[in-house]
Amino acid sequence: MTEPVDLWPDVRPDAAKRLMAAAVEAFAERGFHATTTRDIATAAGMSPAALYVHFPSKAAVLFAISRSGHERALNMVTAAAGAPGDPLTRMRALVAGFTTWHATRHRVARIVQYELHALRPADFEVVADLRRRTERTVRDLIAEGVAASAFTVADTPTAARAILSLCVDVARWYTPESKPDPTELGARYADLVAAMLGAVTA
Amino acid sequence: MTEPVDLWPDVRPDAAKRLMAAAVEAFAERGFHATTTRDIATAAGMSPAALYVHFPSKAAVLFAISRSGHERALNMVTAAAGAPGDPLTRMRALVAGFTTWHATRHRVARIVQYELHALRPADFEVVADLRRRTERTVRDLIAEGVAASAFTVADTPTAARAILSLCVDVARWYTPESKPDPTELGARYADLVAAMLGAVTA
Repeated sequence: MTEPVDLWPDVRPDAAKRLMAAAVEAFAERGFHATTTRDIATAAGMSPAALYVHFPSKAAVLFAISRSGHERALNMVTAAAGAPGDPLTRMRALVAGFTTWHATRHRVARIVQYELHALRPADFEVVADLRRRTERTVRDLIAEGVAASAFTVADTPTAARAILSLCVDVARWYTPESKPDPTELGARYADLVAAMLGAVTA
Repeated sequence: MTEPVDLWPDVRPDAAKRLMAAAVEAFAERGFHATTTRDIATAAGMSPAALYVHFPSKAAVLFAISRSGHERALNMVTAAAGAPGDPLTRMRALVAGFTTWHATRHRVARIVQYELHALRPADFEVVADLRRRTERTVRDLIAEGVAASAFTVADTPTAARAILSLCVDVARWYTPESKPDPTELGARYADLVAAMLGAVTA
């Protein structure tokens, strides 16, 4: 296990967290479809019956992981966008934080980002709403910066998509051996995004 | 089937192409691990025994898909980087082409990019070499542009990684309903990358 159990500070009881952590490992190893509830329960040191106390199905475990990841992403982005400071300072913090999160938590982030098609339709709608709100927050911050002549980028929606895409894709290629470390990568990506937005520096 | 069979113009005979196309659909739907050779053969209208005439295993089908995709990516990037014109013109063409390819071929690109961990070690080495050569080509073009004062970006390796990452991640989120169309998206991403590299325009 490379993911600490405190990935989900809000999840109670600990058994549910252990099941979610075991599911992340199993989904990362074999994919959602090839993983059984027994695989997840066994990896968490529990019986399949004990899993069903917490989650009615494998799909429910995936949804818990995905919703939690998307809620944390939205909270992180919203907090950075709403912090004090000029638009460039806030955008840098947003990109640095989001990049570092995807590098540090690349295993869980891969499940969150790449198993969307395995969600049940009603679950997908919940997650899609969180994704739309995250993207809108980035778009609004770019638009604010353009209005304040802090950014000169022409196409706000495409830039917002590109920024999130750049941060998210870190989960695909980042490994514990990757250089630079997650914090430094975040800082360098913040520089690249500032240039991409045509940031006007005094 | 959304992927045309001519994804693999060099593959002979047609039965092998049909098997690769069926495998792309099956892997995209269920993941590599939950797909059986029988699933692939049946979807291609063949028997499992007929599959083994062309591929010794499911892993061999994955390798054929992955190697072909990575070879085409390398060829595309190398051709764009080596074309006539100044570094910015070549970089724009590289980014536009690579982005458009990932949008148009998002189903096969997802297999190529996200099932790397399912490759056998020797196969992975072949693919990893193609990936390193692709990344080096992008890095060299950035370095050439910096040396010619066409780009002002400070960190060439991180910029190369970010450019490829931006293009590749298109395969994750692009759907046939996405806007703008693949060609227009490529053009807009080329603009964003030009800004990211601090392109100096006369």
